[in-house]
Parts: sequence; structure tokens; C-alpha cells
Amino acid sequence: MTSLFAPEEYRRRIRESQQRMRAASIDVLLIASPENINYLTGYSGWSFYTPQLAILPVDADQPLLVLRAMDVACADFTVFLDPANVVGYPETWIGTAARHPMEFMTQLVRDRGWQRARLGVEKSAHFFTVRAYEILRAGLPDATFVDADLLVDWVRLVKSDAEIAIMRQAGVLAGCAMRAAVDKIAAGVRECDAAAALYHGQLAGTAGFGGSVPNSVLMATGEKTRAPHLKWTDEPFRANEAVTIELSGSRHQYHCALARTVYLGQPPAALLGVADIVQQGMSAVLERARPGVACEELVAAWGSVISQLGLQKSSRIGYSIGLCFQPTWLERTVSLQQGERTELAPNMTFHLMCGMWEGKDKFVMSETFRVTDGDAELLTDFPRGLLVKAA
Amino acid sequence: MTSLFAPEEYRRRIRESQQRMRAASIDVLLIASPENINYLTGYSGWSFYTPQLAILPVDADQPLLVLRAMDVACADFTVFLDPANVVGYPETWIGTAARHPMEFMTQLVRDRGWQRARLGVEKSAHFFTVRAYEILRAGLPDATFVDADLLVDWVRLVKSDAEIAIMRQAGVLAGCAMRAAVDKIAAGVRECDAAAALYHGQLAGTAGFGGSVPNSVLMATGEKTRAPHLKWTDEPFRANEAVTIELSGSRHQYHCALARTVYLGQPPAALLGVADIVQQGMSAVLERARPGVACEELVAAWGSVISQLGLQKSSRIGYSIGLCFQPTWLERTVSLQQGERTELAPNMTFHLMCGMWEGKDKFVMSETFRVTDGDAELLTDFPRGLLVKAA
Repeated sequence: MTSLFAPEEYRRRIRESQQRMRAASIDVLLIASPENINYLTGYSGWSFYTPQLAILPVDADQPLLVLRAMDVACADFTVFLDPANVVGYPETWIGTAARHPMEFMTQLVRDRGWQRARLGVEKSAHFFTVRAYEILRAGLPDATFVDADLLVDWVRLVKSDAEIAIMRQAGVLAGCAMRAAVDKIAAGVRECDAAAALYHGQLAGTAGFGGSVPNSVLMATGEKTRAPHLKWTDEPFRANEAVTIELSGSRHQYHCALARTVYLGQPPAALLGVADIVQQGMSAVLERARPGVACEELVAAWGSVISQLGLQKSSRIGYSIGLCFQPTWLERTVSLQQGERTELAPNMTFHLMCGMWEGKDKFVMSETFRVTDGDAELLTDFPRGLLVKAA
Repeated sequence: MTSLFAPEEYRRRIRESQQRMRAASIDVLLIASPENINYLTGYSGWSFYTPQLAILPVDADQPLLVLRAMDVACADFTVFLDPANVVGYPETWIGTAARHPMEFMTQLVRDRGWQRARLGVEKSAHFFTVRAYEILRAGLPDATFVDADLLVDWVRLVKSDAEIAIMRQAGVLAGCAMRAAVDKIAAGVRECDAAAALYHGQLAGTAGFGGSVPNSVLMATGEKTRAPHLKWTDEPFRANEAVTIELSGSRHQYHCALARTVYLGQPPAALLGVADIVQQGMSAVLERARPGVACEELVAAWGSVISQLGLQKSSRIGYSIGLCFQPTWLERTVSLQQGERTELAPNMTFHLMCGMWEGKDKFVMSETFRVTDGDAELLTDFPRGLLVKAA
């Protein structure tokens, strides 16, 4: 088996990361984020709950990949690396207080002669722990540690055409998932049964392709729709209540997110009004989303429309989205919020998430879109507005 | 809405954690692990991709819970805490390089008068980042930081009867998931369609209850069965190949894991032989699993059986299991491996995972069990051995 993308794609990513390393005077980059490891090597074993690192010297044509011994087999089927660049640490380093796999990796860094190097580490990566960092520092007292947080993430911000092709499939899967959920929702049906339909729709996908692990699927009903990050329960849906759903289509761990609100029965006029305002606000954002426009200008376009119509939203309206393992689907580089001056460029992809949790009538709606040379390309495709079903 | 467990259950957990805090001379415990936050407060918003903390003083009857502002609503529906003990930081702290939510939390620690306290932090928690720790240290130069890694996790090791009741449901859900997957698997069916059936089975569950998010579902076929941590693809299952599946039933994020191997067609005699040896080894472990027996004695029982029959396994044969969010279902306190002298006690729960990835014939089988006063109680219930289906 081979890596998902052609070796040239990984080599370009590596070169772009190395350019950023040079700008930060980093000799060797130690990468713990599973997304960034995958991005630079292809590795897609689901093993990031154990310590692992991709180690990228600034002048190498490939990183080293250091994994738990048993996971070297996962690399065999997913990376573009030469086998000699995949190193396993013994199983005796797992699940014990007596030693820590980062001690093995520290020794490896010494063995390679990098004990006096400037080492980049990802200080906000979820799977690079404080303890791992302390072991590295203690074992490499002559090295200089540089915060390389988000260094590779910034390279990930602009997708390649090959990545966009996968993102488009993820967008289709998001639609499959939402269709299955919306079709299942009815008064008396349990929330967990709609969640089951949603996951089934996302994973089974189409005749052409199926889905990978979808993160962070959220569902709330009735009074709970004011809570943005809850999941389904065993309770039945009830007539004359709203249901909010936020989900993603996931293809090779590339995500397109999609949110909708369903109402069971005749919706209150006020809620329909909110749905209409949000729809106008989203349209204003999508119309404005062209290369060279700063992210905060999208927020201004949104704010201008909804405030004129009497609504407010204090949280961001989206963020960059793409390759993610767990626990979320968002990229941590760019948000659609005030003060974010990053300019849109072709093949950036965003989740435009208009969650209205603050006013009296709760409503969520979102799309995932791609920046092109011209008009934004919608990657998600599902009827907009409040989705009304007979109770 | 109310918390999952009665307030008295949370109070007991808090008291037991505080006993461990006293033993380590910790004044205030800063908890970032989503499992431990949930364990001590009930909080189950899916928001741990943003910084959040439960802050437990050694003499308080409740922790403080510090969340992103919008997630306070998630707390309203899930925690047992007094509303005054849930604090939200403003949305302007999210998704920006200009400030970090941990600065807000550092100020809160100062405002409460803990700037000279001995503060416990979870140095191996996945969602407590190096950057968060550096901000805490910089903002609290007079505090003493103590490694409180796994402090609450050790309390979690022995489940309450209320937790065991939920674990039993998770075990039933694991069976639902495996049944749905095994029924779907056939030559020509895509792996992703079996994954879709698996998730559907787990989430829809039974007429009495459904499932929560199942972590880390793994599936491999043919040559790839030597890789322990891969997921499904779009490829069809093939006749005369094995399929390995490792999954969990998940109920309120309590997990029971279950692994099985399916063979499509007439299985090779050697593979049937391995299945038989593993089954004998597992039985030896389960018979030995009684209170007072050290974990490593279970491993010795296993090793004695399988080595006599000609097999070896260099990785651990299991670990404590229970409450987990993402990315895994395992607890990090106790492994079933050589050198682990922790003694079994009633209401500990283990995933006995016999993954044979090293020999010529790959085979996985596992059960989740509870330690009782007498014989081990199986929480998972599925036919053992190699599952053979006509190709």
C-alpha cells in the first residue's frame, strides 16, 4: 500500500515547512500533532494516544518517524517514507511509570548529533504533553528550544488541489450525514437513533466513496439548543421544539462541517425571522469571500447585515478547516473574527458557522466553503434556512 | 436537567481526590483532563479543544469550573455544581494569538488568593498544553507547581456501583456494535459499510438505551491485520482473508472494549490454532482475576499458557478502562503487563486485549471484565474464538 498523496505532495509540504523553519532559525522540528505528522509523512495509524514524533531536520528530504514498535506496521501501509526513517520504540516503554517513550526519543536526538541544535516544539499541540517537554529539556540541556507552534499548521492553511478533491468528497459526506439525520428526526424518535442514522449516512457515504471518523457531532433539542457543545441523549424528539445539529463529513480525516436547525411542527415566527437574518448574513459573507479580503472583513459584512436586522453574535463566525484527527475538525491558525487580518487566498477552506445561542430564539446554520480566484465555492450542499418537519 | 450521577457520588469522588491532594501537599488542583473534569463535576460539553479547567481547593466541597463563555450553557445541563462555581471567559479569548484563556485563569487563581499555593497540575494530560503551563508559571511566580498527573485517574480506577451499572450498558452496546459489523461483513461488501453498520449498532443500541461517542474503532483486513491501529477503507472485503475489529460500546462516555477476528471462508488450520491458544490464555487470565491478585500475575498466567503452546506476545495484554472522552478509551493508571504490581480490587474494570500481531497468523480477541469479590464478571458478551463466515 502507498501513502494517500503522491510523494511529491509530501515533499512540497516538507519544503514549505523547512522554509518556515529557516525563518525561525530552527534546525530540527519535533512534531507531535497527529495532523502535522500525517501531513508530512502520510502516517494515519490511530495511535497518537501514545507518544510519537515526526522529526524533521531543516535540510532533510524526509522526516524521521518515531512510533511505538507495534505501530511501525501502521506506517508500512500509510507513509511515503523510506523504511529506514521509521523507528519503533519497544513495547516495554508503554503504560509504565518506570520510563517514558520521550526518553527514548531524547536519546535518538542525541544519537543523531542534535544535542546542541535549535529544536522546534509545538507548545500548543494537544498530544505533546508537559511531561514529554520536561523530559526533552532535561535530556538535552545544551539544546535551544523554540516554540514552533502552528508552524506546520500555517502550511496546511492553503490546500493543494489534491486536498481540495478530498475536501469536496468530505462535503458530499456531510450532506449524506445531514440528510440521514433530518430524515430520521420525528416526534417520538429517540435522539440516539437520529445520531445512529447520521453516522451511518456519513460512513456509508455514496456508491463511490465512504467516510472516515467524523469528529464532534453535536445535537441539542428544545431548551438545550442554547448549549453549543452537547451531544444526543436517549430522549425522544418532541413536537414544537427545535433540533440543532452540527456535524462533519470526514474523508481521510479531511473535514467539511455543516450545521442546520430542524423544527418539528409549525415554527414560531420569531425563529423563522432569525433564520432569515442568518441566511442573509451568511450570503453577505459568501459574496465577500474573495482573494485578498481580510478575514475580519467577512465578519464586518456579517455584522453589518445582522445588526441592521436586530441580531448580535459575540463569538467568531468560523475558522479554517481541513485535516484533523481528534477531538475537533478545526484548524487553529485562522478564525473568522474581529482583528483577524489574514487575507483570503485561493484554496483556503473555512467553516462559516453562524451559531445564534445568545438571543431568545436559538438557531445554527453553517457551510464549508473554499476560496477560489473568484466566487467562493461551497463544499457543503444542503437546503438552507430553518428545516421544518411535520410533528 | 441534572448531572448524570447523584451529587453524593461527585462529593465522594471529590473527597477521595482531596485525600490524595493532602498526601501530596497540594493546596489547589488544576484539572484539564476532560475525563477528570467530568468525573468531579459532571460536565460533559464537548468543548475540551478549548482551554478549560476544574479548580479544586483541598478544603472545598465543590470545584470551580472555568469554561469558554458559550459553554457555561453546557454546564447548566450537566453539572451538579452551584451556578456561582461555573465561570465563563469571554469569547474574545478564543482563536487569537493576542491572548490565551490560561491568562484569564491565571488571573482567577490570583484573585482567589492562591498565588503562593502549592498547585497541582496534570503533566501528562492531553489537553493541558505546554503553552498553558508556561502561562500559568509566568503569571504565578510565587506558586509551587506539583505534578499531579493521574491523581484523579487513580480515584477513577475503582468504579462505584452506579458507574458499574453504566459500564454494563456499555458492554451491551459493544455487543450490539460487533453483531452489526459481523453480520454486515461479507466478500464484496465495502469496509466502510461494515463500519457504518457498526456505528449504527452502537449508537442505536437497544430499546432501553443508546450509545454515546465510541472511540478508536479499528478495522483491518488481509495483509493489514498485522497493523494494530488502522481504520476501515472503501475496499471490499475479500474471500479467504481475515478481518480484525476492535471497538467499544460507549454509554455516557464509559467504555467497554471488544475485539474479534472474522474469517471469510475456510480458515487456515494455523489461524484456528492461534485462536484456540489465545482463548485458552484468556480463560486462564479470567480465572485468575480475583481481588488481591497483582496485575502481573494475570500476565504470568497468560504467558504460561501461550508459551507452552508455542506463542509469544511482547506487548501488554490490557489496561484499566472506563470513563474516556477522546482519543481513546483506556485509563492511564494500570496496565496488564510485567512489573505491574497493583492488586486487583472489586469494581476495577479491565480491557483484556489479546492482540497477536507478531506471529505469522494475526489474530485479535478481547473482553472487558469487572473484578468482583469472587469470579470476574464479563461486561462484554460475544461468541469467542475465530468467527467464521462463508465467503
